[in-house]
Amino acid sequence: MSKAVSIWVDSHRQRLLDELFELIRIPSVSTLPEHVPDVARAAAFTADKLRAAGLENVEIIPTDGHPLVYADWLHAPGKPTVLCYGHYDVQPPDPLDLWVSPPFEPELRNGNIYARGAVDDKGQFYMHVKAIEALFAVHGKLPVNVKVLIEGEEEIGGKSISKFVPLNKAKLAADVALVSDTALYAEGLPTLCIGLRGLVYMEIVAQGPSRDLHSGLYGGAAPNAVYGIIELLSKFKDADGRILVPGIYDDVVDPAPEELASWQSLPFSEAAMLRDEVGAASLTGEPDRSVLERVWSRPTMEVHGIAGGFTGAGAKTVIPATATAKVSFRLVPNQKPEAVVAAVKAFVEAHSPKGVVCTVNVLSHGPGLLVNPNHPAIEVAAAAFAEMMGRPTVFTRSGGSIPIVGEFHEQLGIPTILMGLGLPDDGLHSPNEKFKLANYYLGIETVAHFLEMYGD
Amino acid sequence: MSKAVSIWVDSHRQRLLDELFELIRIPSVSTLPEHVPDVARAAAFTADKLRAAGLENVEIIPTDGHPLVYADWLHAPGKPTVLCYGHYDVQPPDPLDLWVSPPFEPELRNGNIYARGAVDDKGQFYMHVKAIEALFAVHGKLPVNVKVLIEGEEEIGGKSISKFVPLNKAKLAADVALVSDTALYAEGLPTLCIGLRGLVYMEIVAQGPSRDLHSGLYGGAAPNAVYGIIELLSKFKDADGRILVPGIYDDVVDPAPEELASWQSLPFSEAAMLRDEVGAASLTGEPDRSVLERVWSRPTMEVHGIAGGFTGAGAKTVIPATATAKVSFRLVPNQKPEAVVAAVKAFVEAHSPKGVVCTVNVLSHGPGLLVNPNHPAIEVAAAAFAEMMGRPTVFTRSGGSIPIVGEFHEQLGIPTILMGLGLPDDGLHSPNEKFKLANYYLGIETVAHFLEMYGD
Repeated sequence: MSKAVSIWVDSHRQRLLDELFELIRIPSVSTLPEHVPDVARAAAFTADKLRAAGLENVEIIPTDGHPLVYADWLHAPGKPTVLCYGHYDVQPPDPLDLWVSPPFEPELRNGNIYARGAVDDKGQFYMHVKAIEALFAVHGKLPVNVKVLIEGEEEIGGKSISKFVPLNKAKLAADVALVSDTALYAEGLPTLCIGLRGLVYMEIVAQGPSRDLHSGLYGGAAPNAVYGIIELLSKFKDADGRILVPGIYDDVVDPAPEELASWQSLPFSEAAMLRDEVGAASLTGEPDRSVLERVWSRPTMEVHGIAGGFTGAGAKTVIPATATAKVSFRLVPNQKPEAVVAAVKAFVEAHSPKGVVCTVNVLSHGPGLLVNPNHPAIEVAAAAFAEMMGRPTVFTRSGGSIPIVGEFHEQLGIPTILMGLGLPDDGLHSPNEKFKLANYYLGIETVAHFLEMYGD
Repeated sequence: MSKAVSIWVDSHRQRLLDELFELIRIPSVSTLPEHVPDVARAAAFTADKLRAAGLENVEIIPTDGHPLVYADWLHAPGKPTVLCYGHYDVQPPDPLDLWVSPPFEPELRNGNIYARGAVDDKGQFYMHVKAIEALFAVHGKLPVNVKVLIEGEEEIGGKSISKFVPLNKAKLAADVALVSDTALYAEGLPTLCIGLRGLVYMEIVAQGPSRDLHSGLYGGAAPNAVYGIIELLSKFKDADGRILVPGIYDDVVDPAPEELASWQSLPFSEAAMLRDEVGAASLTGEPDRSVLERVWSRPTMEVHGIAGGFTGAGAKTVIPATATAKVSFRLVPNQKPEAVVAAVKAFVEAHSPKGVVCTVNVLSHGPGLLVNPNHPAIEVAAAAFAEMMGRPTVFTRSGGSIPIVGEFHEQLGIPTILMGLGLPDDGLHSPNEKFKLANYYLGIETVAHFLEMYGD
């Protein structure tokens, strides 16, 4: 690893922290209209710091929503190009009363920075900015070509960036994308996430009678929309969580034996997950699959919410006319979202109960993704990470979806390195979100080290 | 029938209508705090008119809620005593924009009185008051002893009257109760309702994880409270609506062949019910039972409402921690509410899905009721009704529950005559509630005629 970068980081520790604190103090909550000026300030701050780091062509790009910030440095001919991505917007901080220190006044406690956005994603994308500054400072140039694209709508769906990417393929052309918006699998364990699940999100609406009916006068003969949607949804899965929609597993590719073996070597405790994270009577799911297999490499069906009929205090005896459920399917790589949508629609049509008409509205759909761990950029990233932390890098997947990774894959044809320095208990989107201070500095060095190695 | 009463009604038509209009104009909406003074005004109006009719011992009885109005006339020694019951409170009128004429400005159109409370129950209990006045006017006395009890909380659960009845058994002692708060089976068809279903109303709460979880990170391994309650509730009934709770049909007594035969002779069109009342794709329920059997003499299970997880606009990918459903069972005569509650609790315990804890809170329970059509008072009522309308009286049941009828049965040991003059399309609780004007006058005469015949 680069001693020079290490020394530079060490000698600028306070300033690196002060700048991050300054960024965190801007309450850039993208979902709240009253914070529009703050979001704009965070964009301006980001642009200023990209310029100060040594990048060129710095732009604040207006959108229908919050602006994008772009910058580049393209003076390494013959070297690869890295597209750094991050987001400067944050989740709302409520419930406020659960915060130990105010969400937008970062505080150092127990070696952690506590604040909204500390790890998601201000602290992490700022590692990129400071890594670039460090490389300029010690080498006078960058070892690779770099493009930076930071958005302000990640927490509200990333609409503007997903419009921008397909219209700016040449501008964004690169060999690999680098994203620091994930976590280490465990403290001290260098981790690259190489698989993400896709998502098909839909709303199912059930219509029974044309209006709510009196359950005394009609109960026994009139269809009930709430019970109808219950009957329908109950048919989607068996008691072990296996999805019963015909064909849904057809395109599922099981992880290779080596990948499964590597997961088995990860430190994982089902008991700890149940106790510390889930807090239920027991875990559930396909009994012939490990928990990591279930959440990383198996499709799932969830009902996220359901509403219908009378739900106030007390008793009201209606036969509800309508009911609605929010339903999603997580997809694994190689599953086709369109095929899943078609299979689900056919299933709903086949299984709608008597007297109840059920319709499906698809709100969004995106495929799962698997990055080839033997891709040169991934191999370099894994090596750089391993050198920095003194242990072999582990390859994991995530059960979640990061749509921008799909956009980079589909629109730009490039893989993404998910090099996150968060920790599993950082409390993203929750009160007392934190980022381990040591990981902030380590992240700056690791990103710089990756860029150096990738340039060689 | 009594010519004298008929002549009296005919010669007072306008005043009888004016007084009812005056009563209807008082917006005695019992559920809305801003109408408390109006409810009190309606009670005072009722008391005044009971006194004016010739009754004695008129009282406005304060309660924890809205007052009860009581009056009596007990100077017919050796004659039976009739307890007349009704309610002077009404449902809220909203949605206001669907009313053709304002809800509290009664309007005569097409031979109907359009107004909130026209048929439920101001127009109907006022028939009792005016029948009593007519009898005093033409005979100088009543043919039977009469007690009148009118409440102001029927539309909000009748809490005060159900406290009052058990504490005032002597005061309310009677041979039969007379209630006009139901409808004719069809226009022109004298109808006595002799069966009511009971009701067990409960809330089922499902608890999965201790907090909402990210469906990407935990989907496939963590229990989902919404899906858990769906799985549980789906097991309660088969596709034809048969309840699958063990033992639930044990105490169900099928109607006697003669009663079933009499139902088959009622004018009933399944197609018209589906088209005009239910408005769904089809009716549902036990295929080996007629529609009237299903709603009058079979227990049912309904989910009145369900709530859990994210139900706003758009997409949110949570695994919900909790879900709640409002569930009721309609019971038929001879079923024991306590036994049903116990069976349902055992069923919930046996069928709660893995990782989800489901609890049952019973909000209310009351038994079904069957009045013996050969009871002397019922026979007299049927004969009086038949004479007035020129057709034999039909005996029907209702799938609904009228708790006060159960109170009179249990606390006072008396049957209730459900002699209602409404029509099936009167729109109770809905905009443009109506009461056929001719039925108002007919009701006054019919009630008077019944009291005359019952006194003979």
